[in-house]
Amino acid sequence: MKEYVVAILGATGAVGQRLISELEHAQIPVKEVKLLASKNSAGKKLKFKNQEIKVEEARPDSFNGVDLVLSSAGGAVSQKLLPEAVKRGAVCVDNTSAFRMADDVPLIVPGVNDDQLVNHHGIIANPNCSTIQMVAALYPLHVKWGIKQIIVSTYQAVSGAGKAARDELLQQAQDRLNNQETEAKILPTASAKKHYPIAFNLLPQIDVFEDDGYTHEEWKMIHETKKILYNDQDSQQIKVTATCVRVPVEIGHGETVYFVLKDKSVTAAAIQQEIKKTPGLVLQDDPQNQIYPQPLLAAGKKETFVGRIRPDQENPGAFNMWVVADNLLRGAASNTVEIAECLVRDNLVHVPK
Amino acid sequence: MKEYVVAILGATGAVGQRLISELEHAQIPVKEVKLLASKNSAGKKLKFKNQEIKVEEARPDSFNGVDLVLSSAGGAVSQKLLPEAVKRGAVCVDNTSAFRMADDVPLIVPGVNDDQLVNHHGIIANPNCSTIQMVAALYPLHVKWGIKQIIVSTYQAVSGAGKAARDELLQQAQDRLNNQETEAKILPTASAKKHYPIAFNLLPQIDVFEDDGYTHEEWKMIHETKKILYNDQDSQQIKVTATCVRVPVEIGHGETVYFVLKDKSVTAAAIQQEIKKTPGLVLQDDPQNQIYPQPLLAAGKKETFVGRIRPDQENPGAFNMWVVADNLLRGAASNTVEIAECLVRDNLVHVPK
Repeated sequence: MKEYVVAILGATGAVGQRLISELEHAQIPVKEVKLLASKNSAGKKLKFKNQEIKVEEARPDSFNGVDLVLSSAGGAVSQKLLPEAVKRGAVCVDNTSAFRMADDVPLIVPGVNDDQLVNHHGIIANPNCSTIQMVAALYPLHVKWGIKQIIVSTYQAVSGAGKAARDELLQQAQDRLNNQETEAKILPTASAKKHYPIAFNLLPQIDVFEDDGYTHEEWKMIHETKKILYNDQDSQQIKVTATCVRVPVEIGHGETVYFVLKDKSVTAAAIQQEIKKTPGLVLQDDPQNQIYPQPLLAAGKKETFVGRIRPDQENPGAFNMWVVADNLLRGAASNTVEIAECLVRDNLVHVPK
Repeated sequence: MKEYVVAILGATGAVGQRLISELEHAQIPVKEVKLLASKNSAGKKLKFKNQEIKVEEARPDSFNGVDLVLSSAGGAVSQKLLPEAVKRGAVCVDNTSAFRMADDVPLIVPGVNDDQLVNHHGIIANPNCSTIQMVAALYPLHVKWGIKQIIVSTYQAVSGAGKAARDELLQQAQDRLNNQETEAKILPTASAKKHYPIAFNLLPQIDVFEDDGYTHEEWKMIHETKKILYNDQDSQQIKVTATCVRVPVEIGHGETVYFVLKDKSVTAAAIQQEIKKTPGLVLQDDPQNQIYPQPLLAAGKKETFVGRIRPDQENPGAFNMWVVADNLLRGAASNTVEIAECLVRDNLVHVPK
């Protein structure tokens, strides 16, 4: 059985650490693990299956002899280093937005469109966290009945903006509880000119604004969804619009998803059945017993949780739904490692000539 | 000039206390204020314009000699006591859901449909907090261009569930910061069988569930909106659907409002102009300078804040919008007192024979 040398790029970050623990349990025969990070983090020691591994500074030569790269070190780092890794024969699964919309880069949610991995040229992209959980929930419905339109509002946890954002939320909450003035330095996005408190607040800005008034996060949800669900001629016609809002939650994104099916005769019960039988999805939809997805219940889990499925009573074929998933696992590390598992399963861990 | 005896029913609650302070500054000549509450709160002393007033137990006879009742003591209390008040000649503005959908009770948002006050029979209803701010923002657009469809997702603050819910949020947040187990006793709704933590969480349940899978809060948004915007034959055709979610915010509801206009040629700039010139609405919509509504900025204010207005790029005539307002003021006390101001202005403070 072939064994693989796996490098984790960005190993010390919130997603990087989850990549390590997900890889420990993955269906991937691992010969050796290399942990790569920025110069600042080099020398730190992290554990893989109880074995201590020293973090090395990521450089082009770090990828010599590496078969598989799991990357979550930021878009600029991916842009610079992944082509170097591919040049050295490594297949890269990238968790940043750097390559997602490139024509020759498959954008993959396992269980949805992993059949497209066969077309890879060395780099495979992991979609945005908020896209993954929505597409995972909608895909079985799209295959069975065809989706015409999606209108989504997100309730996104601060850990999506990194560990510093999570620390900031907790510090601001403590300041409020102490009745003290508080400070904001990270959110809505570190590069922004202005920062606003997130504790006990809502920020309708995730990532930077585009010229058309949509944020880049909203742009990602719209265009990544189209790219992933485009599995036949018709699918390109799916209309998608999104509003993304940051909420004072540590882990776990919520989404209200309004979707319109081509088939106007579908019932909520039929949708619940499809969700229930799809691997990776968990139906939590029993209102009379107050069963519905919640971030505190989804945190630490790899599945996507779906509930509150009910028809728009005045628009046949249209439904409301509530979807929750752990943004660091389902929305990042688990999806990345599952892509790597598919690559191993399908014997695709090699860069095509 | 006529002066009025005003009773505040439920004076010791979160909204009740805001009714007192709003009344201090209202365009209502006040002869005397009576503060009414449950037996438990009787004897407490509260201030109106620096004058101490003793809270009395609310009974049918409390309304003898009262001209105007501002009521926020819960649906069951309104149901029992307001007909008694009307019998004694008092006009009642009720902040509960007890009478909202009754055919002979006007459901009023001042500035939107206060012309319907003339039809009152003694009781006037204040809409649900989440309905008021949405309808306030949409009404000028509906008058000018006609609204066909509304799809709303709410991000609702805990103070909408009372002071105890707000205390619970803060206690749970402190427990999390101390890394201690926490308890839930109030939310999602006090009468529910199960309670869940709201700190650092999201609860897609506000009020109880109806048989069709919608919550009663969602039902209120759908049906109250139709009742309020029904100002011509056509308006009854507005389609409305809603998902209501409780978020860990103290004060200030957020709403993502997707709406479809009959006129497909309308631009975002034209909508911004309408919002800007409508009294009671504040346009906060400058993405490049990160200007958008936030609960922390809206708390303590009477206006409704509107931003993130942008077209659905694939559906002409459809727009996304973000609306925030103080749920205790704009969504409750301010609206109630403004209804009373309209009654005084139009000389309607008398029960028709």
